[in-house]
Amino acid sequence: MTEYDLLNLNYRSLDEAREDMSRLLGERAKNESLPQALYNDPFLFRVDMDEVFMKQWLFAGMTCEVPKAGSYMTVEIGQNPVLIVRDRDGEVRAFHNVCRHRGSRICKASKGKTANLTCPYHQWTYDLKGSLIYTGSAMGENFDMSQHGLKPVHCRTAGGFIYICLAEGEPPEIDEYLQALETYMEPYDMENAKVAVESILEEKANWKLVIENNRECYHCSGSHPELLRTLLEWDDTTDPRATPEFKAQYERQAQEWDNECIPHEHIEFGLRNRIVRMPLKDGTEVMTMDGKAGCKKLMGRIENRQLGSMRILHLPNSWNHMQSDHVIVFQVLPVSAQKTLVITKWLVHKDAVEGEDYDPERLRHVWDATNRQDRELAEQNQRGINSAGYVPGPYSESYEFGVINFLDWYSETVLREFGVPPASVPRQAHG
Amino acid sequence: MTEYDLLNLNYRSLDEAREDMSRLLGERAKNESLPQALYNDPFLFRVDMDEVFMKQWLFAGMTCEVPKAGSYMTVEIGQNPVLIVRDRDGEVRAFHNVCRHRGSRICKASKGKTANLTCPYHQWTYDLKGSLIYTGSAMGENFDMSQHGLKPVHCRTAGGFIYICLAEGEPPEIDEYLQALETYMEPYDMENAKVAVESILEEKANWKLVIENNRECYHCSGSHPELLRTLLEWDDTTDPRATPEFKAQYERQAQEWDNECIPHEHIEFGLRNRIVRMPLKDGTEVMTMDGKAGCKKLMGRIENRQLGSMRILHLPNSWNHMQSDHVIVFQVLPVSAQKTLVITKWLVHKDAVEGEDYDPERLRHVWDATNRQDRELAEQNQRGINSAGYVPGPYSESYEFGVINFLDWYSETVLREFGVPPASVPRQAHG
Amino acid sequence: MTEYDLLNLNYRSLDEAREDMSRLLGERAKNESLPQALYNDPFLFRVDMDEVFMKQWLFAGMTCEVPKAGSYMTVEIGQNPVLIVRDRDGEVRAFHNVCRHRGSRICKASKGKTANLTCPYHQWTYDLKGSLIYTGSAMGENFDMSQHGLKPVHCRTAGGFIYICLAEGEPPEIDEYLQALETYMEPYDMENAKVAVESILEEKANWKLVIENNRECYHCSGSHPELLRTLLEWDDTTDPRATPEFKAQYERQAQEWDNECIPHEHIEFGLRNRIVRMPLKDGTEVMTMDGKAGCKKLMGRIENRQLGSMRILHLPNSWNHMQSDHVIVFQVLPVSAQKTLVITKWLVHKDAVEGEDYDPERLRHVWDATNRQDRELAEQNQRGINSAGYVPGPYSESYEFGVINFLDWYSETVLREFGVPPASVPRQAHG
Repeated sequence: MTEYDLLNLNYRSLDEAREDMSRLLGERAKNESLPQALYNDPFLFRVDMDEVFMKQWLFAGMTCEVPKAGSYMTVEIGQNPVLIVRDRDGEVRAFHNVCRHRGSRICKASKGKTANLTCPYHQWTYDLKGSLIYTGSAMGENFDMSQHGLKPVHCRTAGGFIYICLAEGEPPEIDEYLQALETYMEPYDMENAKVAVESILEEKANWKLVIENNRECYHCSGSHPELLRTLLEWDDTTDPRATPEFKAQYERQAQEWDNECIPHEHIEFGLRNRIVRMPLKDGTEVMTMDGKAGCKKLMGRIENRQLGSMRILHLPNSWNHMQSDHVIVFQVLPVSAQKTLVITKWLVHKDAVEGEDYDPERLRHVWDATNRQDRELAEQNQRGINSAGYVPGPYSESYEFGVINFLDWYSETVLREFGVPPASVPRQAHG
Repeated sequence: MTEYDLLNLNYRSLDEAREDMSRLLGERAKNESLPQALYNDPFLFRVDMDEVFMKQWLFAGMTCEVPKAGSYMTVEIGQNPVLIVRDRDGEVRAFHNVCRHRGSRICKASKGKTANLTCPYHQWTYDLKGSLIYTGSAMGENFDMSQHGLKPVHCRTAGGFIYICLAEGEPPEIDEYLQALETYMEPYDMENAKVAVESILEEKANWKLVIENNRECYHCSGSHPELLRTLLEWDDTTDPRATPEFKAQYERQAQEWDNECIPHEHIEFGLRNRIVRMPLKDGTEVMTMDGKAGCKKLMGRIENRQLGSMRILHLPNSWNHMQSDHVIVFQVLPVSAQKTLVITKWLVHKDAVEGEDYDPERLRHVWDATNRQDRELAEQNQRGINSAGYVPGPYSESYEFGVINFLDWYSETVLREFGVPPASVPRQAHG
Repeated sequence: MTEYDLLNLNYRSLDEAREDMSRLLGERAKNESLPQALYNDPFLFRVDMDEVFMKQWLFAGMTCEVPKAGSYMTVEIGQNPVLIVRDRDGEVRAFHNVCRHRGSRICKASKGKTANLTCPYHQWTYDLKGSLIYTGSAMGENFDMSQHGLKPVHCRTAGGFIYICLAEGEPPEIDEYLQALETYMEPYDMENAKVAVESILEEKANWKLVIENNRECYHCSGSHPELLRTLLEWDDTTDPRATPEFKAQYERQAQEWDNECIPHEHIEFGLRNRIVRMPLKDGTEVMTMDGKAGCKKLMGRIENRQLGSMRILHLPNSWNHMQSDHVIVFQVLPVSAQKTLVITKWLVHKDAVEGEDYDPERLRHVWDATNRQDRELAEQNQRGINSAGYVPGPYSESYEFGVINFLDWYSETVLREFGVPPASVPRQAHG
């Protein structure tokens, strides 16, 4: 697809692209897919990166992936390598993974453990709080080490999730969501979890198509036989399409969860965040092929195998399924206008033993299949959208309200960063 | 080569590129190869796509490739997926292969058969005339299905050939050529033919270099030993270079063809189309390595094995060789400024039995070799043209008049679309 | 990395890029790495190509690679194929490797031998001085062959090195350097050498990062165990960091070399060229793993196995190590903003017999390893520089003066081509 990039270059400059994006988002029809250029123009992609991925909070990983002092992990936000490390006080910190000497990427591995952060190029060394502590004798006596510490990246954690924000100045508000996340995740004790298995999928599709695909289950019956063995197609406990049987099941399970102090009520923070615990199909426990346990050990303090799936949405780049014996976290990383990475991690109790308590292949089976199916759908969607024959089409308000919500959030977020007054921002109202 | 694309970006915008193309074509020297940018600039390539491939009639395939109601095939014109399908009335139709819901490509396979056209994303379903007939209950009661049919693409057939035109409005005139094609192809009964074998070749060269290469045989003696076992190097029955022996052979064969009502006279429609039946080397029957039969069954109503090759030219994207026992059709599809696909199909009588009446390897041998040789020539041509050391060079008026004709057609076509008055269009006069 | 190219397009046009490069170079901080765009913007890369690689003298190969009349080699400077050939008078000449007919690349092989230069497309034939001597009858009687000779490229040789310059007009002065090179290379008799083995490495890094990496050994102790078995880390015989032991060793060896008429004194020509013979670690002979001989036969008239390594620098694209029994030459060829080729050749006496006098694997071992390590460093450097977290950092004046010198040369050269008066060019003063 990359040979097509230059076919879709519509602007003379980033400034011109920003101006036109403002117009495109301001004029866009409610409840319709976006104009073509927003899905494939390389300059508009750069605006997405600048206004969304460089300014908003992003899901970056789990705290249990950096379990000890000196544990680190790396993530690339577009072209920007970021380093996440736990310091000796137990705090999780994030830095630009870029040496202050000649700019080399410092840590290359996706995960590791180290006493200090040493650049492989000339061995400049930083402590775990990012202070430069060694350059050898090369830099001379007048060199001020205190002026050459690693550049920090905003970093917050809650309930085992790590969020980073690359904004230069103050990051957007996120406290309320993090507080709720802490509460909702309390039963899972994520500090004592571990990644059992993970996958990285490259999709030849714009990142918004990847998110749109995730935000509705209208496509599930046609594409996801494995997923539908346990997942209920509607998106919320209050979905108007829900059957009486489902409502009875929900009543029963919600009662159990309340008794066990397992949070489950739908809660949201603007359109960006949303948490809700949804039952799985009656009689199933987790998202495995047979709906039976994925891991013998349950997560945290959990005792009830039927916790359904607690869904956590964090725009622009994550959805999650929290179940009784394992949790699945998803991370979306845009690469270019028509290329996106989707990283999926399956986590279990840290004391669960592979081969004894869980089988990684069994654990990943359903969502591996689902991810591959979704990649195919997103790529075919991109191929069609690239056509001169594409025109924005109508979303279903009953089946695709999640997509509408996502595009409203996206549009409002970008326009707000552009300084467009909120009154003029179109807003979708619905359940 | 794709890393070179950004090295050849000469314009700030598509508008600037259009303006400069008008100048470049208006000022180009007669009988010389084009200025460099017309062969490698990504924006000028987009103008080629806009003015030529999105507005002119293109060869898309053969009617016998969609033999029954519901048979379909797909083709990509640049980024534009097109679907060709035979409806229940036997008519061959073309549509943008793009769902009106969220823009997904509908049919992915290159060929298939289906009762209706169902989008794989959300199962929106269209009948074979492109009308939307099913969306489930998702779209609600107020949704107007009649407003969401597939977007049609102009489609015409004649003599077994399918031509499409992606123009938004009225397509260019093509009736006269199609009438002649019907007459000239009548002996072949192409509705009762089938594709025996096909190849797809990717060439790292601008589409015009691929066509230029095909439009002359000046290069044949140096590069095409297999082809020259049967092909005569001159391009027409009236070629001034032709020998007395050839003229005698032609007289004899033309007499036979007239007796058998096999059309053969040179006929042309502007510079775009040209049909002429040329003898092959005396004593040979078809373009095989030994010049003997490629298929035991003859095409259509044909009884004479020595029909030479009826050459059909259709600019901008097809040349063809119609012989007694098989026909070969060639289709050129530009991908980017320096990448082009060449699709070759060998067709035989539909009742011919593989392994009994014909051997696909034997059938394809000569043109497979020739295509590979031509790819090498086109790619080396591109490599040299990309150089700062390139300057347009002179075409031979006796050996390369076909190239001159092609570039005249190209230039006139683009300038006409630009609204440049015909009087100011340079025109090459020759035999 | 190529998907990142469009993320780093900062200018509307080449003119705008040139203007901003003038500003960036004029304002750059002394002794700091360059602003990000100079390492990754596709338009600024084109300015580098236009002002440096298309105008300055480039190392292209060794005269012994074209040993006889009709011997040729090819090299690609960016998109520009160049042909180097020895004519019947023994002179080494360079031409644009582009046919004057339709622009095809003429010679495709990296090396060969031929009586005349024949284009593979239509057999246009040029003699070894580039004159067109054959086109067949195609071009008609009025065609003037004398107007269609190969376009020459400036070409100079000295001491076995071939330098070319693609400048349209007069090339920069190079006589003084070539005279010295002739003198310094005299003992090696490079006309009677041969390439024993060569390697081509593709590095995903801007060409300037490749050169910067070569211009300092601050990184050696952390990355190059093989190289440091024989190489002394300091860069010159007068390096202030040198130990008394080294100075004593140098005194002793310099005395020997003087007695043997082996040139060794540091000499330089502006910042572009620099020649100096540096001892290797005491007791070692050449850059092999054990420091022992790489080839039984010594080069040219050399008799002393301990000649250290004569280092020859030629900006923008070559460094070299001349030893007693083999020499190693390095050539840097930019491909795109973030892609560069490094070609390394190991040469021995032409009468040395592979398997008897030398083992190619043994010969290449140390610099193969070093090149791979340097590639990794350059690529990680590029990855970090691409980040929004990158800011130019300080070079060490004691360890990285070679890098500072290189960037001063680069900056002065580009600004001079831009017509900026020398007085306003910042200049780094140091040893």
